[in-house]
Amino acid sequence: MIFVDYSLLWLDWRPKAGLPEYTKRILGTPATRQGKAALRELRNGLKVMRSEPDTSAEADGGPAIRLIEYPGNDEKVTLRRSGDGMELSGSGRGLLYGAFHLLRHLALGEEFPEWESSPAYPLRMLNHWDNADGSIERGYSGRSFFFSGGKPICTERTRDYARLLASCGLNGCCINNVNVHGSALKLLTGSYRRELKRIAACLGEYGVSLWISVSFSAPMELGGLSTADPLEPDVRKWWEDTCSQLFPSVPGLAGFLVKADSEGRPGPHTYGRSHAEGANMLADAVKPFGGKILWRCFVYNCTQDWRDTETDRAKAQYGAFAPLDGQFRDNVYLQIKNGPVDFQIREPVSPLLGRLEHTESLLEFQLAQEYTGQQKHVCYLLPMFREVLDLHLRQRPARDTVAESVSAVCAVSNTGDAFNWTGHDLAAANLFGFGAVSWDPAVDPAYIAREWSILTFGDEPEVTRSVTDILLRSRTVYEKYTVPLGIGWMCVPGSHYGPSPEGYEYDRWGTYHRATHLEIGVERGPEGTGFSEQYSPELAAIYGSVDTCPEELLLFFHRLPFSYVMNDGRSLLQRIYDDHFEGVEEAAAMAAAWDKLESRLEPAVFARVRERFQEQLRSAAEWRDVVNSWLYRLTLIPDEKGRKLYL
Amino acid sequence: MIFVDYSLLWLDWRPKAGLPEYTKRILGTPATRQGKAALRELRNGLKVMRSEPDTSAEADGGPAIRLIEYPGNDEKVTLRRSGDGMELSGSGRGLLYGAFHLLRHLALGEEFPEWESSPAYPLRMLNHWDNADGSIERGYSGRSFFFSGGKPICTERTRDYARLLASCGLNGCCINNVNVHGSALKLLTGSYRRELKRIAACLGEYGVSLWISVSFSAPMELGGLSTADPLEPDVRKWWEDTCSQLFPSVPGLAGFLVKADSEGRPGPHTYGRSHAEGANMLADAVKPFGGKILWRCFVYNCTQDWRDTETDRAKAQYGAFAPLDGQFRDNVYLQIKNGPVDFQIREPVSPLLGRLEHTESLLEFQLAQEYTGQQKHVCYLLPMFREVLDLHLRQRPARDTVAESVSAVCAVSNTGDAFNWTGHDLAAANLFGFGAVSWDPAVDPAYIAREWSILTFGDEPEVTRSVTDILLRSRTVYEKYTVPLGIGWMCVPGSHYGPSPEGYEYDRWGTYHRATHLEIGVERGPEGTGFSEQYSPELAAIYGSVDTCPEELLLFFHRLPFSYVMNDGRSLLQRIYDDHFEGVEEAAAMAAAWDKLESRLEPAVFARVRERFQEQLRSAAEWRDVVNSWLYRLTLIPDEKGRKLYL
Repeated sequence: MIFVDYSLLWLDWRPKAGLPEYTKRILGTPATRQGKAALRELRNGLKVMRSEPDTSAEADGGPAIRLIEYPGNDEKVTLRRSGDGMELSGSGRGLLYGAFHLLRHLALGEEFPEWESSPAYPLRMLNHWDNADGSIERGYSGRSFFFSGGKPICTERTRDYARLLASCGLNGCCINNVNVHGSALKLLTGSYRRELKRIAACLGEYGVSLWISVSFSAPMELGGLSTADPLEPDVRKWWEDTCSQLFPSVPGLAGFLVKADSEGRPGPHTYGRSHAEGANMLADAVKPFGGKILWRCFVYNCTQDWRDTETDRAKAQYGAFAPLDGQFRDNVYLQIKNGPVDFQIREPVSPLLGRLEHTESLLEFQLAQEYTGQQKHVCYLLPMFREVLDLHLRQRPARDTVAESVSAVCAVSNTGDAFNWTGHDLAAANLFGFGAVSWDPAVDPAYIAREWSILTFGDEPEVTRSVTDILLRSRTVYEKYTVPLGIGWMCVPGSHYGPSPEGYEYDRWGTYHRATHLEIGVERGPEGTGFSEQYSPELAAIYGSVDTCPEELLLFFHRLPFSYVMNDGRSLLQRIYDDHFEGVEEAAAMAAAWDKLESRLEPAVFARVRERFQEQLRSAAEWRDVVNSWLYRLTLIPDEKGRKLYL
Repeated sequence: MIFVDYSLLWLDWRPKAGLPEYTKRILGTPATRQGKAALRELRNGLKVMRSEPDTSAEADGGPAIRLIEYPGNDEKVTLRRSGDGMELSGSGRGLLYGAFHLLRHLALGEEFPEWESSPAYPLRMLNHWDNADGSIERGYSGRSFFFSGGKPICTERTRDYARLLASCGLNGCCINNVNVHGSALKLLTGSYRRELKRIAACLGEYGVSLWISVSFSAPMELGGLSTADPLEPDVRKWWEDTCSQLFPSVPGLAGFLVKADSEGRPGPHTYGRSHAEGANMLADAVKPFGGKILWRCFVYNCTQDWRDTETDRAKAQYGAFAPLDGQFRDNVYLQIKNGPVDFQIREPVSPLLGRLEHTESLLEFQLAQEYTGQQKHVCYLLPMFREVLDLHLRQRPARDTVAESVSAVCAVSNTGDAFNWTGHDLAAANLFGFGAVSWDPAVDPAYIAREWSILTFGDEPEVTRSVTDILLRSRTVYEKYTVPLGIGWMCVPGSHYGPSPEGYEYDRWGTYHRATHLEIGVERGPEGTGFSEQYSPELAAIYGSVDTCPEELLLFFHRLPFSYVMNDGRSLLQRIYDDHFEGVEEAAAMAAAWDKLESRLEPAVFARVRERFQEQLRSAAEWRDVVNSWLYRLTLIPDEKGRKLYL
């Protein structure tokens, strides 16, 4: 391993006054790798916090932290007072989460509550879109730290990353892009087994399982077969043989992530087979090794004719997968993006979420800010995640929310080899927050923002207040100055950064607003494409009617005249104008709030974030002017407040 | 040299019955390389045409072609009857043009007129936008044949190309991209002198001079100087030293082409110096070797704010160069694109053309079909070239046309290493036609199309008729289904292929139409940006008024309501709708005409062109539907004839 002095993000412990007496001693000798890691983390963390040369189990009697390791592999953790001391018990993995939890709360200087917790989901993972050549698809934080020059690599950063994941409650990581190109194909073969084994070991020490993305046509690309038909015995055998060599030699490998029949990727449809037939064949191959298949549901017609108004991309996933419910093996998870289209700043919840009664489902978020400012704009996504998780699907008497309906959660990672991991220093809050919400989907975004800020920037109250406030406002602000009321897209094709209101309008991606000088949007209610009917009857009624549809989603569900009167009496057009002017003002206020922290922050951190804010303000003004001027040119209706629009 | 069986284009002589008796014998033994090449071309050509084993000067008495070589280097050629024979006289270069001329006319089977001719311009050249890595910027005919793997190469194709150029009257070739990247910089150094020398020799045998594009900041990039300031003695000296080593070792090198202070290229403005100061410094350095500097005038603000309605890109070149008239050395040519913007399918003539009274000017066309269908669409450009050349500038009592005003002509090449040289077989007519018009700017595009067709496809009358007809209609057809009435752009940003009516609207390139639901276009008359005032008073009056402006340029010069009534009574909007519907129909008619030739053409040629037509028809329909639907959505005014528009 090479050593690089990476930033530690929220694990950068600092000396802390007034720590409880029990932090002087740690008792217990865990036997597992994870338990030992827990002990090491506690020791190292407390050494820094106490500013003492060492905190060891050998210290004299008195209050102590006592680690009690139970056998097994569950993730339950119990932290409780025991006399003057603190007792931390669990499996090795439980100890690890408990150790980080304890360290965090000590660092926060808060009254420490007893804690007995299990994660809400057994799988809480990150998807890396890292390519074998070291590039990252939709990566905004430098190059990959999992791949370089066509090969997987294991470095000091791999372990740092494992620590970061475990410390915020995550336990899985798929290291390569779902679009499997080039030598990434060969992760299945013997070529990179040594590297994979090292990565798996490094992640495994912190309870993080390794996953790889595979190509459905690997039997052809690697095995020289003439088909990848999942019902073909040779194909099944190729996968069985491949798995029986791969899994035993890479302990900690948990399974495969597959993007099939999606955006040009190969899949079972090529052979007239269903997604279930494709996924099950792979599931059978990995089953003997306890493996799982994560099968992405992101399928739609990506060569749509823009003239075709019958096809509605939003309907594609439910249409493709709902009829297959019950046909999948129990070690298949269907991985479903939070919205029906593609990680826009505002979408309704995917109607497929919570609708699969007999199939495991995995909710997919995107931390990489592909459509949400590309880590040049601050956009704290936890409030959005909570909206998705909290939605009542109105189809079951109990356990009716999305959070209660899904079996697991994952997110596309926003990390890379950038010094600060996430490009924008404030974007690390999304990684931390995703970990928190994946452990406990009811977590408060404000609490998490505050916690992350203190752990990252220290506990100066003004810094905490300002950073928390910036984070909490950021998503709404971004939404206001970019794409209005759920209509989506309007970004520059390809790069997905910056405004282009007509950029996708005559293209093949199924993302249209069909604006005329009188109206805008695709009607997705019962009189339109019928997309709203994919929800439970109660939700369908709400979304399907313009009177009950939540305003922030109005233009996702409905085609409306610019003169449409909003709840507060403004016209739709004026509402959009106002949002864009306000959004830029609010972005400027966030930047100004940051500027006030100059004397209270490390100069390098202050300057890095300030530079991002400058780009955010430039870009926000561009969004405002382009979207508003485009609407003005269309409608020739001026802003009621006489603000500048450009002819 | 490697031998590859390249297509010979119009030099693919075929056996021909009824040739005159004098074609049996060739007399004369030219002394120069070019004269010898003339003799060889005649011998080889006549050998094929006569289907005889040899045609040699040694044959018995009787009528003959007699070559008479005069000393000197001028390009005048005289072909005249002498008894039963034919006398061809001139310098070596004159003999070469005469030989090809004679061969062409014999192949055409036409009564052969006596011919005494000199080219209209001393320099008639091609610009290659070939990069050192072998790619071609805006190339649609494969890879470069001048560069491979970072180095210049000289192959059999180099000679074939020299023959092609000479055979249509061209005499210069700049082999590398005006955007000088990577190892192309090093063409100035000793690194590639051997290769350059070979290329120069190969071209020179056919009277074609070699030019290279150079970077204005080469003294920094190559010479390690800290500046490229043209008034800095060290910089002057660096160029003088470089030229004194380069020119003597590369005989046939004629000078440098420079793109300076344009689209991010370095130039004298960096140092507060004028274009004249920059160009003159280089001119002084090449002067001792008879060298010339070709200085491109393609300068404009390429980071314009779209909100800025004061800046008009069309005005930039005249604004930058007209005030400098008289300040340039006599071995500097200002290279001026035919239009004021950038090779659109319809632009007015650049107001800088013919306006420089004391400066040599070089008119630049583009054969590479960057904006005219990228050699997937047939678009015969000679009619457009003639429009430019024929325009009366209305500023001088005599010699008032563009053709009479400029000192030289050049064109961006449309060739590459594709088997058929130009990607689209029919695009070779543009290369041939450019040669013809650069020799004689009054040449008839219909005559040239016919001549090219016969030389290329043989003399079957139906083929000749159809091909000529397709070529002559093609530019108007392309214009109809793409960008209306001179407004320009509306193509996909970056690729410049396919429609995107708002693609450049909010971008930095200064190319806007600012359409609202009522009107479209930039007003460039005296009440607008004043661009029209850059022409002579008489032309300014014509272009500046909507009543006298030629209709095909209406939207270049004027902002007009969609309801504007055209000369024939149609509304502007209806005219655009009609053009687009008609354009696609006419493209289909061209394709159908080609289909009828199936039995009369080589199957491979027929199929290649047919495939291109299929793509042209697909793309044309896309242009029609996108542009018309975009206008329909803007205006909500339906087509008067009820044809389909898409909401």
